[in-house]
Amino acid sequence: MSLPAERTFPRPDPSLVERAHAALVDVLSAGQVRRDDATRERYARDESDSGVYPPDLVVFPEDTAQVSAVFRTCQALGVPFTPCGARSGKSGGSLPLRGGVSVSLERMNRILSVSAEDLTAVLQPGVITGDLMKAVEAQGLFYPPDPNSWEMCTMGGNVAENAGGPRALKYGVTRDYVIGLEWVLPSGEVLRVGRRTLKGVAGYDLVGLFVGSEGTLGVATEITVQLLPLPRHVKTALAVFDSVHTAARAITAVLAAGILPRTLELIDDTALRAVRNRGFAFPPGAGSAVIIEVDGHGEEGVFAELVQLGEVCERHGASEVLVAQDESQREKLWAARRQVSPALRALKPHKISEDIAVPRSRIPEVIRALKAMGEELGLLVATYGHAGDGNLHANLLYDGPHQRALVERGIQRMLEITVSVGGTITGEHGVGHAKREYLALEQSEGLLEFQRNLKLFFDPQGLLNPEKIFPASRRS
Amino acid sequence: MSLPAERTFPRPDPSLVERAHAALVDVLSAGQVRRDDATRERYARDESDSGVYPPDLVVFPEDTAQVSAVFRTCQALGVPFTPCGARSGKSGGSLPLRGGVSVSLERMNRILSVSAEDLTAVLQPGVITGDLMKAVEAQGLFYPPDPNSWEMCTMGGNVAENAGGPRALKYGVTRDYVIGLEWVLPSGEVLRVGRRTLKGVAGYDLVGLFVGSEGTLGVATEITVQLLPLPRHVKTALAVFDSVHTAARAITAVLAAGILPRTLELIDDTALRAVRNRGFAFPPGAGSAVIIEVDGHGEEGVFAELVQLGEVCERHGASEVLVAQDESQREKLWAARRQVSPALRALKPHKISEDIAVPRSRIPEVIRALKAMGEELGLLVATYGHAGDGNLHANLLYDGPHQRALVERGIQRMLEITVSVGGTITGEHGVGHAKREYLALEQSEGLLEFQRNLKLFFDPQGLLNPEKIFPASRRS
Repeated sequence: MSLPAERTFPRPDPSLVERAHAALVDVLSAGQVRRDDATRERYARDESDSGVYPPDLVVFPEDTAQVSAVFRTCQALGVPFTPCGARSGKSGGSLPLRGGVSVSLERMNRILSVSAEDLTAVLQPGVITGDLMKAVEAQGLFYPPDPNSWEMCTMGGNVAENAGGPRALKYGVTRDYVIGLEWVLPSGEVLRVGRRTLKGVAGYDLVGLFVGSEGTLGVATEITVQLLPLPRHVKTALAVFDSVHTAARAITAVLAAGILPRTLELIDDTALRAVRNRGFAFPPGAGSAVIIEVDGHGEEGVFAELVQLGEVCERHGASEVLVAQDESQREKLWAARRQVSPALRALKPHKISEDIAVPRSRIPEVIRALKAMGEELGLLVATYGHAGDGNLHANLLYDGPHQRALVERGIQRMLEITVSVGGTITGEHGVGHAKREYLALEQSEGLLEFQRNLKLFFDPQGLLNPEKIFPASRRS
Repeated sequence: MSLPAERTFPRPDPSLVERAHAALVDVLSAGQVRRDDATRERYARDESDSGVYPPDLVVFPEDTAQVSAVFRTCQALGVPFTPCGARSGKSGGSLPLRGGVSVSLERMNRILSVSAEDLTAVLQPGVITGDLMKAVEAQGLFYPPDPNSWEMCTMGGNVAENAGGPRALKYGVTRDYVIGLEWVLPSGEVLRVGRRTLKGVAGYDLVGLFVGSEGTLGVATEITVQLLPLPRHVKTALAVFDSVHTAARAITAVLAAGILPRTLELIDDTALRAVRNRGFAFPPGAGSAVIIEVDGHGEEGVFAELVQLGEVCERHGASEVLVAQDESQREKLWAARRQVSPALRALKPHKISEDIAVPRSRIPEVIRALKAMGEELGLLVATYGHAGDGNLHANLLYDGPHQRALVERGIQRMLEITVSVGGTITGEHGVGHAKREYLALEQSEGLLEFQRNLKLFFDPQGLLNPEKIFPASRRS
């Protein structure tokens, strides 16, 4: 996420809001349209810490026809409208920057079907990701994408942001599982795109385009996902290293060993210092740690693979490799990993986290460059996260708003380093509001302009989720 | 593919062709622009058997700038242009229906890099898929998509068609591996889209939209793919059943057993009769067969999984399960599978194959309905292929052109049955020219119209690969 910088954007005038309210009460019902301060305040923020932008109205459609009617109403009146789910996003994708109408999909929260034979599930966008996971696991099935917020985030939001998670290394991200969508275009037109089969290539892959479009090209009102058989065995190990540089080189070696772990998570020295004494006893002298998790159907095979990867770590400088002997040890390890983000907040009052992704061979170099940058600027840098797929959470820790200029320089440098090695400024959180001004570091003006025009093809008035993803055109 | 029906389309007049020739020789060189009859004839057809459509000119650009220059020249003159690779497509995607310029990417055929550390490869579109497979295998890496034509088809064609193959069941299709593209838009503008990292969500997923766009939204001039570690062990078994109906039910049971084989191929009674006595000795009484292949890193684990799936087959009516004991037995099994298509051609002079895909639970019902349809119409029906992912190759065998009307009814019925169970008219071959008139069976007029407009957003004059995918608008 980027530094909170509350820019102001033009908002609809009160008389237009009044007309929108009347029109929306008309197409929905009074109980589905809210404009009290408490509700507006609640829908004004998300998990990106990138500002407070209250909508003028919040609506709660309960079916596809209502979503469509809301979109048509907003288009007819010229009122901005922004879809939202659990507002757990990290890039401000659901913030109604220009006010107007927040369209909450949270009441459309039913799992419509789960088929063990077809390995598919059909669900509404307000379904909590964790509820889907549990529902399919009960049938021996597996929905792999596991964003950190899985206990609260919604599948509609996962589709909008193309959410990832630690298991992406082996299993991919949301777009690898979504095969069909019922989709409401900005105009209010409803399309059924994609398929219900594992394979299918009829027409353009609009599902591919819509997943990850960050609520700017329309919204999913029904989602069909494919599932996998649930792996029967999962084994987890912790490899301990003297420094993050040794750990980073070992990660590269593990990836080259020919076995794909399901997760490969890095905790650097700063992060390790933060989580020490928070439930998991890291060995003394540990300067960095890597969590390796392997899964599969045969217990012995899974164990053998983990041992093999542990040996690779030892050959590449691990001082110790601890294998979780049971589920409670495994849970302790992951609890430590989940503690990293809050624990870092305890080190310093403020934290900015960038979810950069880099080619995996460049991880050691990037970690080195980020540390050097931090030392030069006098900022604490902590790097942790999904190192196995190159998706690092690179954090700047700082004391307060007086360091704003310094932190802004730090973010800029961090993203420049990332792009210079062929990386991307966002591995899984999206651009949204938070990274909009940085996208030009990665993408050419020609590509940005092409995407702005594509957005206009979908939404000629630019009313759906305005001011997102693309920086203002230099050509205009 | 559909029945050969050589429709005629308007073509550029000779003076325009003359001007295009002069302009193209100017931006390329004389040796890169051909208009002799032998060349035009060679580029007039593909593997879809859906007609002979000679281009007026064939050009052979050698780098991205030349591709761009060719596109700009054609746009400026208003000449249709159609990209092609190895012309091994099954849906007529590379046929220059309106004549004009065939743009062959075959000279851009270099693998630019393979990185074992990053698990990526960067290559030009003219690279033969099999050459990429071999190049990465030499480094212990794996490019999984395996279209049947892998020994001749090009990666550019695979990207255009989103090619699949038997291994798609476990490993997915081309779009699951392409992460970045250098892409020439119909206007000639060159964009770099996507990323070089495993994860990345910056901007719209244009890679998702471009893969499978069948050469109608532009062409790839550079392709970045992600790779996997090469599985060390592959084990193959043949399960024999008395009838295709028993086999189809066993496939459903195998999929529900919680282990994902890498392939699960069905051979029905007609297909089995055709390949009998062609190198592989199917047991007497065999009415249908299923080839199961499992892969992984531990030999014992892989073998245990195969045995377990064999037992599932036996519990569901397999009369015999034969496990290939070595590579030569395994190769014999696959040779029999590859013989199916040519062997069916020997049963009857003519064959139409539709690559339908259906939800996997509906396979038994679909096979039953197709057989009944064949009996009703008096046509021989053979169904085989990638049953594990629901992608069946459903064939109509017939004697000659006098049966055309009957065969057309058969195709229509076949696709109607497919769509009625939630299936798609094309699992991996694309719509192209061959299935264009059938797409409306599956997609609503609203969706078709939206896609036609999207095509016009990319290509306002409709010059790139015209007359493909979408049936003519009913609204115009």
